[in-house]
Amino acid sequence: MPMARVHRIATTGPDDVSGLKALIAAGGVDPKGIVAILGKTEGNGCVNDFTCAFAVSELKRLMSDHLPAQEAAKIAYVMSGGTEGALSPHILVFERDDTDGPGPALAIGGAITPDIAPQDIGTQAQIETVAAGVRTAMQAAGISDPAHVHFVQIKCPLLTADRIAAAEAQGHATATRDTLKSMGLSRGASALGVALALGEIDPAGIANAKIGTDTALWSSRASTSAGVELMGHEIVVMGMSDHWAGDLIIDHAVMQDGIDTDPVRAALHRLGIDTAGQVPADQRQNIVALLAKADPGSTGQTRGLRHTMLDDSDLSATRHARAFTGGALAALTGRTDLFISGGAEHQGPDGGGPVAIIAKRQGAAA
Amino acid sequence: MPMARVHRIATTGPDDVSGLKALIAAGGVDPKGIVAILGKTEGNGCVNDFTCAFAVSELKRLMSDHLPAQEAAKIAYVMSGGTEGALSPHILVFERDDTDGPGPALAIGGAITPDIAPQDIGTQAQIETVAAGVRTAMQAAGISDPAHVHFVQIKCPLLTADRIAAAEAQGHATATRDTLKSMGLSRGASALGVALALGEIDPAGIANAKIGTDTALWSSRASTSAGVELMGHEIVVMGMSDHWAGDLIIDHAVMQDGIDTDPVRAALHRLGIDTAGQVPADQRQNIVALLAKADPGSTGQTRGLRHTMLDDSDLSATRHARAFTGGALAALTGRTDLFISGGAEHQGPDGGGPVAIIAKRQGAAA
Amino acid sequence: MPMARVHRIATTGPDDVSGLKALIAAGGVDPKGIVAILGKTEGNGCVNDFTCAFAVSELKRLMSDHLPAQEAAKIAYVMSGGTEGALSPHILVFERDDTDGPGPALAIGGAITPDIAPQDIGTQAQIETVAAGVRTAMQAAGISDPAHVHFVQIKCPLLTADRIAAAEAQGHATATRDTLKSMGLSRGASALGVALALGEIDPAGIANAKIGTDTALWSSRASTSAGVELMGHEIVVMGMSDHWAGDLIIDHAVMQDGIDTDPVRAALHRLGIDTAGQVPADQRQNIVALLAKADPGSTGQTRGLRHTMLDDSDLSATRHARAFTGGALAALTGRTDLFISGGAEHQGPDGGGPVAIIAKRQGAAA
Amino acid sequence: MPMARVHRIATTGPDDVSGLKALIAAGGVDPKGIVAILGKTEGNGCVNDFTCAFAVSELKRLMSDHLPAQEAAKIAYVMSGGTEGALSPHILVFERDDTDGPGPALAIGGAITPDIAPQDIGTQAQIETVAAGVRTAMQAAGISDPAHVHFVQIKCPLLTADRIAAAEAQGHATATRDTLKSMGLSRGASALGVALALGEIDPAGIANAKIGTDTALWSSRASTSAGVELMGHEIVVMGMSDHWAGDLIIDHAVMQDGIDTDPVRAALHRLGIDTAGQVPADQRQNIVALLAKADPGSTGQTRGLRHTMLDDSDLSATRHARAFTGGALAALTGRTDLFISGGAEHQGPDGGGPVAIIAKRQGAAA
Repeated sequence: MPMARVHRIATTGPDDVSGLKALIAAGGVDPKGIVAILGKTEGNGCVNDFTCAFAVSELKRLMSDHLPAQEAAKIAYVMSGGTEGALSPHILVFERDDTDGPGPALAIGGAITPDIAPQDIGTQAQIETVAAGVRTAMQAAGISDPAHVHFVQIKCPLLTADRIAAAEAQGHATATRDTLKSMGLSRGASALGVALALGEIDPAGIANAKIGTDTALWSSRASTSAGVELMGHEIVVMGMSDHWAGDLIIDHAVMQDGIDTDPVRAALHRLGIDTAGQVPADQRQNIVALLAKADPGSTGQTRGLRHTMLDDSDLSATRHARAFTGGALAALTGRTDLFISGGAEHQGPDGGGPVAIIAKRQGAAA
Repeated sequence: MPMARVHRIATTGPDDVSGLKALIAAGGVDPKGIVAILGKTEGNGCVNDFTCAFAVSELKRLMSDHLPAQEAAKIAYVMSGGTEGALSPHILVFERDDTDGPGPALAIGGAITPDIAPQDIGTQAQIETVAAGVRTAMQAAGISDPAHVHFVQIKCPLLTADRIAAAEAQGHATATRDTLKSMGLSRGASALGVALALGEIDPAGIANAKIGTDTALWSSRASTSAGVELMGHEIVVMGMSDHWAGDLIIDHAVMQDGIDTDPVRAALHRLGIDTAGQVPADQRQNIVALLAKADPGSTGQTRGLRHTMLDDSDLSATRHARAFTGGALAALTGRTDLFISGGAEHQGPDGGGPVAIIAKRQGAAA
Repeated sequence: MPMARVHRIATTGPDDVSGLKALIAAGGVDPKGIVAILGKTEGNGCVNDFTCAFAVSELKRLMSDHLPAQEAAKIAYVMSGGTEGALSPHILVFERDDTDGPGPALAIGGAITPDIAPQDIGTQAQIETVAAGVRTAMQAAGISDPAHVHFVQIKCPLLTADRIAAAEAQGHATATRDTLKSMGLSRGASALGVALALGEIDPAGIANAKIGTDTALWSSRASTSAGVELMGHEIVVMGMSDHWAGDLIIDHAVMQDGIDTDPVRAALHRLGIDTAGQVPADQRQNIVALLAKADPGSTGQTRGLRHTMLDDSDLSATRHARAFTGGALAALTGRTDLFISGGAEHQGPDGGGPVAIIAKRQGAAA
Repeated sequence: MPMARVHRIATTGPDDVSGLKALIAAGGVDPKGIVAILGKTEGNGCVNDFTCAFAVSELKRLMSDHLPAQEAAKIAYVMSGGTEGALSPHILVFERDDTDGPGPALAIGGAITPDIAPQDIGTQAQIETVAAGVRTAMQAAGISDPAHVHFVQIKCPLLTADRIAAAEAQGHATATRDTLKSMGLSRGASALGVALALGEIDPAGIANAKIGTDTALWSSRASTSAGVELMGHEIVVMGMSDHWAGDLIIDHAVMQDGIDTDPVRAALHRLGIDTAGQVPADQRQNIVALLAKADPGSTGQTRGLRHTMLDDSDLSATRHARAFTGGALAALTGRTDLFISGGAEHQGPDGGGPVAIIAKRQGAAA
């Protein structure tokens, strides 16, 4: 039976692939089994964050040293910029291996969509492209029931001044001419694509005008991140499957706002981790990965109190939110190498977001 | 017997004094009893943060409408810039009132030191000026035993290009010519002044060269904040005193790093607040004020993992740290109107910091 | 006959009114004659720039010490945030005095419009409010022919999260929910108000949808600046009038892009200033004030070459543009105390902007 | 005789090598002759600017497709981050070709120094390493008289938190523990290395304590830029040599402050370019490259007027200065694809900096 393995590797910079290289050399990971590489890099996570593209460039070069071009091209690279506060840059390598049963266990599957045109970013066309991609990735993970999907991580494109100009030169209007805003629209449309594929929203209720505005539409399991380095979508589905085996399990929670950690505490508890206070040192290694979205929300308030994230012209609200919710989740788990990604449009309720935790099964060898 | 009252008032901007004005008008606070006004404003908390000065200017104007100049001048105004993440701008008005006993209860006392010269910022001269001020403020609070002091909040000066030039024009060298760095040196020297006054460090162990560098020297109860709007120090001492009465009590904790919330959890517990998980909604009002320091530390790591706060030239490390530890403490308490101040040089261990909590006494009317 | 005097006073911070105070004390300016105070402060010039409000608060306090409330309220305070690069913070005090003829000479007139509602910001309602205000200010300046108007400086309001929420609570939609974007819409609508009043655009050609988008609509003499500190408009008209006398004259130019300094050079030449190379040291004092707009434009290019201002999520494009065009104009004039304001929506052609120069008349005593 | 050719190629992002690739494919440049590639990328030019390393990585990969490893390794890659304002990202490819005489003409030569240890950054050891490298590069350029050297461009290393920790782990103290400050010390020491090699300073007058502090020590032709991507130095010397031929010539100027463009105007004039006003459109192509340093200086003033670059904690002074002086030089030349690099410690007088211009010889075919 297939078995998922997840390798968490600290990096010393966006282009640092030495850890993965050493692990491959030591036989700790088999390049042929790598389905996806997720990573947090130390850029600003906004329009001019080139650290994601840099990381992907170096990772692809490394993988092409170990795999035929055709196979290397199937790996999804989902880098997310922004390690504000004490969050720590790292990569998560998702490997598909084999083992004896029984299941269920963590299952993973990836898909890469075709490139879309600049004018399709932030529109229904993007929603549908992503929904199709999610279905493909679910098949790859061997998950048929959307209820068994616990997280869908997507890297999606954004508009730059150049791309807007290119679209306009061909007579097309883009969804926005504001490059930073395009990131939000792309993340939002991608999240709605997940919601559509998982049956969380009614297809009839989707319209271009609702993208980025109707906060009642959201997915409880989408996590999308926009980057300048691609025009398609890199999709990774994670869930539990009876057809997979191994020591890893996954669960998820939804935070209602940026400090709503009790649902995450409950999910950790369900995964067998002690959460009276901060997760104690001897159990932190059982948290193999925590993936979450952080978002300032659109109201300018948290629990009725004003915050200043949306009025800060020196520092983008996504950076604020990542640092803040990063602190909340790091204090809960005792770990700082968390995959916290900013911009949660249509990912969880307004101002909140989904959180997935991959853990070692209770009683598994450390 | 004297009784401390603490009014927490949300603000809509640095110059918003309407809440305090209304409270005075409604008889909720007596201007004559105001000892200190602490506040979090939404500036960057760095050299060019004029929001603190703006707040102080407007608050002073308001108080001068209600008090003779001589009395108004005795109030300490300790504004701290930076409400990153979902932290919420607010002021804390510390009032001295009277009530029947018995004690002990929260006691407060303020002091304002003379201005120091630019070349004294970040030196032993500043340490001694502050230590004298802390002793004066302890007397004002009626606390003689340093063990009963739980927090000392100080607003201290910083260097600007103009002040450096002025010192140099007179033949004096300043401790640094880097204005941002001067904030750290001033905060550090002020914290060592607290440590000296509270007997936390050996007077013989102090030297100019250790200010800002010797992380083994620290106070467990100092919180210092640098601002462009003053050249002296505004000092507020808070502690427990048998000679004070009322419903408010105070305790403190020391975080070892930016996510070390368990000591704070323990302090909340000692104050009678339920901390299984996030503080529940019905108990959050019992947390009258939380005052804490956040700091990136000097090692570039948290619990052995690299962070990027010290290498980020777009965003000062103090803003990073405030957002991150702000998230940690907001998730613990369920509140975002916390007084979290950046730059914890010599305030708690390297990368950590002191936290004080003022709470309603168990069983006191809400 | 009325005579305009312009006092340029360097400031040491946003709240520094000591220079003006000293000038009043020395009899150098008569508070009763002050029509307007323009100023460049060192904030970011964006949503959370409180330096303008701080400056206005302190200036108003100073003026209220010298004038009855009713007269003090007639002064227009037009602070503009952002002194990037080596631009130097300063204020320009416009005074109306008397002298013998003959004219023509610099004429000035101010007006303050009523507050507008948040939902009117960036709409035709704002355009009309401003146009009416400009006509009032022209009357105050004694200028009837729009061709004699050389500059109209306006401080206009912006949206904050709070103001948006207030409008929405009453069932109104604001022109945008993006606070930074609201500054551009407000500046643009205000500029179109100037264009309307000066006959530069066809009233029939105005529509809400064109505000901020139709770059073919612009005023050659509008300079508008948005600030958080007001909800109305402070308007100052400057021009040449036969009915005014004195040593000061004014002319203007339009830059086609951020480095198009030759039209400004020509204007300086018309004003009698030597411009073979940088304005020589002995003639720089004849430039009493230079007021200009800087803007990144909407195309992402200057003269066919890509720039990165619109894709920079760390630094707002307005700050980039102010620094860059500030350098261009400072190198031309040899002065850094220029009033360069960012955000030139509908002020000059896309990417360019108007420039006005007030100079001492050739042969006037220095 | 050797002939220098300089190809200026616009880029669409830090990793865009498509222009150079196309030029090679079209036979426009011979990879074997490439001596150095200089480039301006759109990062922040500070500690966490990964755009330079990204550009170098992609350029090296491209060159390794065309050259044996040994030859590819000899090329100097000198990327400089920061295209503030309307400055335009581009690369400058310096090629050594052959032609018939006569000379003199532009001569170029490169050298790469060995890596230095973190603790040597900002010390005399670095000065000497660089001086030796400059001498090697002069030999490579066939220039023996330092008077014929017009520019020395150097990419030098900086300290990161990791590098500081590594040095300290071995018992070494680094020159500073402030990573941003380390960039200035490295640039300064490298510039003094140039000054030493060119005989501009007295070897006896050098001391560690003067690096970064003694503004009287400077080179009129050094331009140094620090980057995270190397621990050695990449050096390119440019000058005039009788032994070189071709259509390109070079001259230089020294700006006394950030707007001191008249010396540059004079240099352009010496090179045969019309500078009555902005360089006219038909002559702009004759400016093949302009390389300059921009710096805020240490005094906080320009021509006696306060600026705010050194007090701005939101935006580093180097970014301010690059934008501002970039505007000054772009307005002079009419071009925005200028190589303007920040941080001019010991490069020109305090607050000013050297400028080199490579031009087509008067009468040469365009």
